[in-house]
Amino acid sequence: MSVQVSTKMKIAKPAHDVFEALFNPVKIGNFWFSSGSARWEPGKVITLKYAEYGAQGDIEVIAMEDDRKIVFKWGATGEGRQVVTITLTELAEASTVIAVTQEGWQEGQEGLLAQVLDNKEGWVYTLTCLKAYLEFGVTNLRASLVKH
Amino acid sequence: MSVQVSTKMKIAKPAHDVFEALFNPVKIGNFWFSSGSARWEPGKVITLKYAEYGAQGDIEVIAMEDDRKIVFKWGATGEGRQVVTITLTELAEASTVIAVTQEGWQEGQEGLLAQVLDNKEGWVYTLTCLKAYLEFGVTNLRASLVKH
Repeated sequence: MSVQVSTKMKIAKPAHDVFEALFNPVKIGNFWFSSGSARWEPGKVITLKYAEYGAQGDIEVIAMEDDRKIVFKWGATGEGRQVVTITLTELAEASTVIAVTQEGWQEGQEGLLAQVLDNKEGWVYTLTCLKAYLEFGVTNLRASLVKH
Repeated sequence: MSVQVSTKMKIAKPAHDVFEALFNPVKIGNFWFSSGSARWEPGKVITLKYAEYGAQGDIEVIAMEDDRKIVFKWGATGEGRQVVTITLTELAEASTVIAVTQEGWQEGQEGLLAQVLDNKEGWVYTLTCLKAYLEFGVTNLRASLVKH
């Protein structure tokens, strides 16, 4: 059976503002990776940099629906890449629920618990930093998880 | 084998400020529960309220070491209560690493994955809200996870 990690948060901003923050290569630096190599578009491979850790990774954008949905794969090539789906649901009074689902694990696979916990940690942290950035203009909450 | 969930975050404040925020019944309302029934002390049972959800829960404080450590149990009575240990390690330049470990699960127990993910979500969110409160004075980042 496949295993997925889902995280949802309410952000008091219109869906358009949330969507724009996610794939704008400069805005992303305020709450997630330090920068992206380009604006996200379907079919594009984007390199995301984590300057603080001297690290970077690629994602492949699969689909985008303006202000509503983004689907991408972690890693530029190869089998077994995780698929991430981000959906935005705008509520009354210009607030939005952002939902992130990451999938591609199989029940019983080695190291499953550690992997899903690590990814869960990343999404909860990123969405909270995104909320702080969009609602309160805080641009410096990210990159403070201590991993070991 | 027992399973635990650990989360660590760096906060750019002295350990004393972090410690005080955690168990002060008013300050807690800025980043975690809406209020606590009393100041935390070893041996005390504290009722924590979540006004937004009309919910409340009890914890039993087991041990406290000023500005360094807090150990408590979720739930006021009964067997099988989870034990939470919070440790603060002050670094140079008035910054502190806060580490939270929750334990009491057994590998193979029913619903384990969902339970550890739910608790992981709670801790990452709470620590990020705590950081936003202490470093940037943001008091309204909490209570926005959407559970279903």
